[in-house]
Amino acid sequence: MESPWDELALAFSRTSMFPFFDIAHYLVSVMALRHQPGAAAMAWKNPISSWFTAMLHCFGGGILSCILLAEPPLRFLANHTNILLASSIWYIIFFCPCDLVSQGYSFLPVQLLAAGMKEVTRTWKIVGGVTHANSYYKNGWLVMIAIGWARGAGGTIITNFERLVKGDWKPEDHEWLKMSYPSKVTLLGSVIFTFQHTKHLAISKHNLMFLYTIFIVATKVTMMITQTSPMTFAPFEDTLSRMLFGWQQQFSCEKKSEAKSSSNGTGSLTSKPVDDASDKVKKKHPKKTE
Amino acid sequence: MESPWDELALAFSRTSMFPFFDIAHYLVSVMALRHQPGAAAMAWKNPISSWFTAMLHCFGGGILSCILLAEPPLRFLANHTNILLASSIWYIIFFCPCDLVSQGYSFLPVQLLAAGMKEVTRTWKIVGGVTHANSYYKNGWLVMIAIGWARGAGGTIITNFERLVKGDWKPEDHEWLKMSYPSKVTLLGSVIFTFQHTKHLAISKHNLMFLYTIFIVATKVTMMITQTSPMTFAPFEDTLSRMLFGWQQQFSCEKKSEAKSSSNGTGSLTSKPVDDASDKVKKKHPKKTE
Amino acid sequence: MESPWDELALAFSRTSMFPFFDIAHYLVSVMALRHQPGAAAMAWKNPISSWFTAMLHCFGGGILSCILLAEPPLRFLANHTNILLASSIWYIIFFCPCDLVSQGYSFLPVQLLAAGMKEVTRTWKIVGGVTHANSYYKNGWLVMIAIGWARGAGGTIITNFERLVKGDWKPEDHEWLKMSYPSKVTLLGSVIFTFQHTKHLAISKHNLMFLYTIFIVATKVTMMITQTSPMTFAPFEDTLSRMLFGWQQQFSCEKKSEAKSSSNGTGSLTSKPVDDASDKVKKKHPKKTE
Repeated sequence: MESPWDELALAFSRTSMFPFFDIAHYLVSVMALRHQPGAAAMAWKNPISSWFTAMLHCFGGGILSCILLAEPPLRFLANHTNILLASSIWYIIFFCPCDLVSQGYSFLPVQLLAAGMKEVTRTWKIVGGVTHANSYYKNGWLVMIAIGWARGAGGTIITNFERLVKGDWKPEDHEWLKMSYPSKVTLLGSVIFTFQHTKHLAISKHNLMFLYTIFIVATKVTMMITQTSPMTFAPFEDTLSRMLFGWQQQFSCEKKSEAKSSSNGTGSLTSKPVDDASDKVKKKHPKKTE
Repeated sequence: MESPWDELALAFSRTSMFPFFDIAHYLVSVMALRHQPGAAAMAWKNPISSWFTAMLHCFGGGILSCILLAEPPLRFLANHTNILLASSIWYIIFFCPCDLVSQGYSFLPVQLLAAGMKEVTRTWKIVGGVTHANSYYKNGWLVMIAIGWARGAGGTIITNFERLVKGDWKPEDHEWLKMSYPSKVTLLGSVIFTFQHTKHLAISKHNLMFLYTIFIVATKVTMMITQTSPMTFAPFEDTLSRMLFGWQQQFSCEKKSEAKSSSNGTGSLTSKPVDDASDKVKKKHPKKTE
Repeated sequence: MESPWDELALAFSRTSMFPFFDIAHYLVSVMALRHQPGAAAMAWKNPISSWFTAMLHCFGGGILSCILLAEPPLRFLANHTNILLASSIWYIIFFCPCDLVSQGYSFLPVQLLAAGMKEVTRTWKIVGGVTHANSYYKNGWLVMIAIGWARGAGGTIITNFERLVKGDWKPEDHEWLKMSYPSKVTLLGSVIFTFQHTKHLAISKHNLMFLYTIFIVATKVTMMITQTSPMTFAPFEDTLSRMLFGWQQQFSCEKKSEAKSSSNGTGSLTSKPVDDASDKVKKKHPKKTE
């Protein structure tokens, strides 16, 4: 690829996340918390709990990767500048008179800008996680993928877990049962950057960061403009799962499990029937327990 | 302050917790476990589980601070003397014939003495946690506050979490939703000792320990004698939350969120409406899920 | 004991677990997962979640011991060979056409062989855990017992916890409320090997490993052939708990707690009334909360 592009990608990969992109990340995370039912009333009654939840929303990925690598989960508290930044954003979002911030955030362009900048931080987090995990386990590429994934998308798991402990939790939207779009795109990026780091991808890191960031920002923005649910991965997943798990279908076995699974449609991770499967589990349990 | 007072405080700050104050702490913790419904019957049927729960009640704060600093949570098992002490207290409390210990503990003076000595250990734990956290993060004062808080009051969180895993759990009394009095006073002490440790408070550590211990012991004893719920912090909290979060009230915005929060009464952490707020959350979820 | 026996035990204690015994362990663990209601349908719809659960079933003990010693819980991902082995076994078990593997596994001799070999790995895990914990805490024998126990039987705790997070969880079968047979035999083995390691048992380690392995394999196989629930420990437990906790019965106290516990039958860990005790707890809570 020609030199100006290369210089552009290199300059881009050297931009610091600190003031602006972090602010966008905190803004989007805390606004997501603000839009949960009862969050506003709760912030008025128990500010400390609300602040704690907001911090989990902002730094959840880092906390999860710290736990997975047996590092102090409280490390994020040692970075006073970011804590101050996130806390002030939490404060103005929840306690600004007349909800000026929420009203300003309700304009689509602001949301697009903030969401796009948040996606940029995702790339940086994935790369940081992969590099950090590599310093623990030399070419332990599974660990690198896991840590990159945890840093990039672990916030959802941490916040879900916190809601589980707090008592309000719907297992339907658990990350593991039905992977959300950010989880998938983060997993993809984590795999890509791990392979690049282990020299299995012949592309320089700054170019890969540039391309991946363009990809996730573009998809995110288009998803927000056209209110479509992200079907970007469905065909890819279908073909992959049909390759991996679907080829047994051609064998003719009269087994109810085969019938059931084929009726459910083969293996798109975003397929609906997950819920009635979990219902099935719940229904079957009482029979088992007594 | 004059010299004899100073000597007294210094001598007090040098007293060892080991034999007697630790015994009082274990006694109060295990008795709290004993008074939970079904705990006695459970101890007869599954002694190992009951012993494990008792250890969590006795050493929960240390375990939580170990987890938060990524140290082995099992470290408390290496201190055989304290384990033996706590186990024997658990044994005589649960299996003493005719419940002699429980009956003896039911006398108020014994309870007052034990509770007061337990509060003394709280000061030592907070100081230990703050100093220990400082050895990890130089002037990471947020971490110091968190660890001091976890050591002093983390037992409740750990035991609540254990009850969550065990299946009997009421999210109403979760520490985060409605901070109990020990949590608040421990948080206050943790903040004070952190500021003293970072030289922002011009008072010697032994004097501060002496004063803080007198304060918490006195409040605890008065709370136990006069069966009042601890309103010590309510006015302070009210003024603080009105300063921080209440000033938006004066702006006249026709927004339901403002109306709701003002109807709830501004921000006292011990205010009742927390429960119906959580009910509100539960009520809203089904609408959201389907 | 004579020399040939000694040589046999020594040779046995030097056999490597890697290819075959690990395969048996993974096979038994994943088949246990496969037989859970809804597991097969779930594997077709969300393979990643199913694979993750299978890994937890295969490596849960190691993960738990890593958590308890504050080591990276992801370490098991760095061992690529075992991960590949377990993943391929998960793949052929869940996605083999016509369920050939399940049908082959349904024959009793295959199950007996696999279960026996899995029990052999249990011994190796306990010994490894005890030795590993000793490298942390010199003669911290409580930690050694706990880690040996966690490595040998911790998988159940981890998987129960994962099911708790996933939403399908029956607190009735929680490990702590009612210890399963593997937990008990692993605890016994962990105690024995700890005492042998701290030179309190005058028997060489390879002999002890040989005898213990013979014991657990024999009991497991007999339990599988004669479909009896394992009553091996009941008399031992009864005598022990009568010694420790039963002697108070002879005192004549008119206290309902004594009456209740004696009516429940004194302390066999496998006694039925555990369930109605937990019901009692649930019944008592509402009275307490309002």
